[in-house]
Amino acid sequence: MLIVKKFGGTSVADKERIFNVAKRCIEDYEKGNDVVVVLSAMGKYTDELIEKAHDINPNPPKREMDMLFTIGEQMSVSLMAMAMAQLGVRAVSLNAFQVPMHTTSSYGNARLKKIDTERIKRELEDRKIVIVTGFQGINKYDDYTTLGRGGSDTTAVALAAVLHADACEIYTDVDGVYTADPRLVPTARKLKEITYDEMLDLATLGAGVLHNRSVEMAKKYGVRLVVRSSLNNSEGTVVKEVVNKVERMIISGVALDKNADRISVIGIQDMPGSAFKLFNTLAKKNINVDIIIQSVGREGTKDISFTVSHENLDEAIALLEEKKEALGFEKVEYNCDVAKLSIVGAGMMSNPGVAAKMFECLYNQDVNINMIATSEIRITVLVAQKDAVAAMNAVHEAFGLSERN
Amino acid sequence: MLIVKKFGGTSVADKERIFNVAKRCIEDYEKGNDVVVVLSAMGKYTDELIEKAHDINPNPPKREMDMLFTIGEQMSVSLMAMAMAQLGVRAVSLNAFQVPMHTTSSYGNARLKKIDTERIKRELEDRKIVIVTGFQGINKYDDYTTLGRGGSDTTAVALAAVLHADACEIYTDVDGVYTADPRLVPTARKLKEITYDEMLDLATLGAGVLHNRSVEMAKKYGVRLVVRSSLNNSEGTVVKEVVNKVERMIISGVALDKNADRISVIGIQDMPGSAFKLFNTLAKKNINVDIIIQSVGREGTKDISFTVSHENLDEAIALLEEKKEALGFEKVEYNCDVAKLSIVGAGMMSNPGVAAKMFECLYNQDVNINMIATSEIRITVLVAQKDAVAAMNAVHEAFGLSERN
Repeated sequence: MLIVKKFGGTSVADKERIFNVAKRCIEDYEKGNDVVVVLSAMGKYTDELIEKAHDINPNPPKREMDMLFTIGEQMSVSLMAMAMAQLGVRAVSLNAFQVPMHTTSSYGNARLKKIDTERIKRELEDRKIVIVTGFQGINKYDDYTTLGRGGSDTTAVALAAVLHADACEIYTDVDGVYTADPRLVPTARKLKEITYDEMLDLATLGAGVLHNRSVEMAKKYGVRLVVRSSLNNSEGTVVKEVVNKVERMIISGVALDKNADRISVIGIQDMPGSAFKLFNTLAKKNINVDIIIQSVGREGTKDISFTVSHENLDEAIALLEEKKEALGFEKVEYNCDVAKLSIVGAGMMSNPGVAAKMFECLYNQDVNINMIATSEIRITVLVAQKDAVAAMNAVHEAFGLSERN
Repeated sequence: MLIVKKFGGTSVADKERIFNVAKRCIEDYEKGNDVVVVLSAMGKYTDELIEKAHDINPNPPKREMDMLFTIGEQMSVSLMAMAMAQLGVRAVSLNAFQVPMHTTSSYGNARLKKIDTERIKRELEDRKIVIVTGFQGINKYDDYTTLGRGGSDTTAVALAAVLHADACEIYTDVDGVYTADPRLVPTARKLKEITYDEMLDLATLGAGVLHNRSVEMAKKYGVRLVVRSSLNNSEGTVVKEVVNKVERMIISGVALDKNADRISVIGIQDMPGSAFKLFNTLAKKNINVDIIIQSVGREGTKDISFTVSHENLDEAIALLEEKKEALGFEKVEYNCDVAKLSIVGAGMMSNPGVAAKMFECLYNQDVNINMIATSEIRITVLVAQKDAVAAMNAVHEAFGLSERN
């Protein structure tokens, strides 16, 4: 078996944890498996590097920022190789130049294009554990690039894909994917399996332990993903294309996103193209909007409401006020006291009445629904912040996700 | 003009110093020069990395140690590029993979083999300041290597050679090469010029501010070296093939090495090959010996004395005791209370009586000479530690090197 194992920054934050990771990798290696390890920078080291850089230049060139960032993972991989050597196992660390790991040109947010497997395969054939820097690549100019958020997960999945690995294990500080965030829903249950699509929806909703890009890539290349804890040996959650039908519940998880704010554009002219202009204006500034609803306003106008993430609120409001005349609306309002509650599950496609059941549950809890959005495997509602956690628990219980069921 | 400027770790130890270096480079750049900057790791960062490594593995694989070391210079160069950007100047940092900088295979002590100049030249043509990681290279396996002691100086000189630079400026915490260590000889004077050979001798004697390898390389490729201070704008010392005759003094400098211990092998058999066997035994263990004298002993035997550096003393004595029978001598003695005092100068070749003048000076000081060794441009004597500094000052004065002369 060829196994790709990815460990995040907290898993390699100090000497003790580095040795823990080394031992876990060696366990698999000594069973005769080929082991490729992908590591992030240690603990808060990336933050330290950002601080160092900003102290010198508050707005450093992105190319140089990536040059600085990449030393973080290089430190992790070389120290890990030393730890494995100390434990008597042959290991070799490789950075993006040594693999090499080719990406698009854009610094800070590059995408993987091509991974050469020759060196890695040669080292594996030589029975070494291969330790690869996550998060980083090189572009056509022979410059370092970084992959942006969730970058090391993406590196791991991509390596698993090109090496045709039997599994890609992503180690985190939780021991798998839960039916809901256990900090908010005490009865949340760990899932044995989940589909790529469900995982994608959960990731989008901020409830996932994996970044979207890595799940998308895993889905595209059929990489068997396993989310596991770096702290214990529990089995974790397998992310794959189709999950066991016996296991199948109607919904797989409940997610809550408190980071959503609602913006309402009141009295926009009711004419073709007005919605397009509105959202195009926001898109140009890279402001992502989520749930959108449109209602009839007064005297031939309409009202359009949508949600944005909290960090985009100020910019969105300022932008809309600036373009008020061009977009032709009366006023803009916003509400920060809202939360997005979602249920996700491939099972709902073949089960009518899922939405009705969710709304009934919220009605019984006396929770008012502000907005609704649905996809084939997801239903999202906007509720008041104060109601959010209670509503989340009620829905979790109603769909039989609780541990005691 | 194309200028290569090398700054050591203390010159880039913090934000303020990084900006000082950036400004000095920009000054030259804005005069229209092409500027290539070579940097070491910041301050004590390399020591920190060694500590991190040894905490995990007291005897880490050298290949992984080099992988770890190289992040030090990468940090320096990327931060320097950010500082220059902050000052409004276009700069680009390059590591050993990006140059690339090819070396021999041996980790921890590699030698430069070939430097590709294409990327550097392209960046210079694009009017960027090019900032290169010192000390590091890559070998034929595409692994990082490091150049060992004085490595960044060597990188700078090698770059100056392959780029046909007009000068290679080595910035240190002293402002040039002095006629003697100013901490020991208060009247020591800064030299305007010195020859490669004199510099090599001074470096060998531990009095030099440059490492031997870099001076050897500069001599081989005719690179005009300038030793300057990173703290002030004084002119420094030029190291070159032939120095101005008007300037020429008989000797250029006085050096003192307190790190020498004397070993005497007493009663060695007086037969062919006995000296060879003795020094071959030491050489095999990488123990370098310096001044050697041989005198007639009792009853067909001879005594051989030589100096070793203090850190090699214990090993040398143990080795000799172990091989006593094979080497065939009576006993071994040693003396740690000695110092090596040397005068260096290309001028002494054409000036007879230099040695006599030195001995006379020491006689006037009532200093006993233990051993003597000479080369074409150097005379070294072994004296008691207690006499060393006074003797040094007297010789410095006698040859007219003092500032007041």
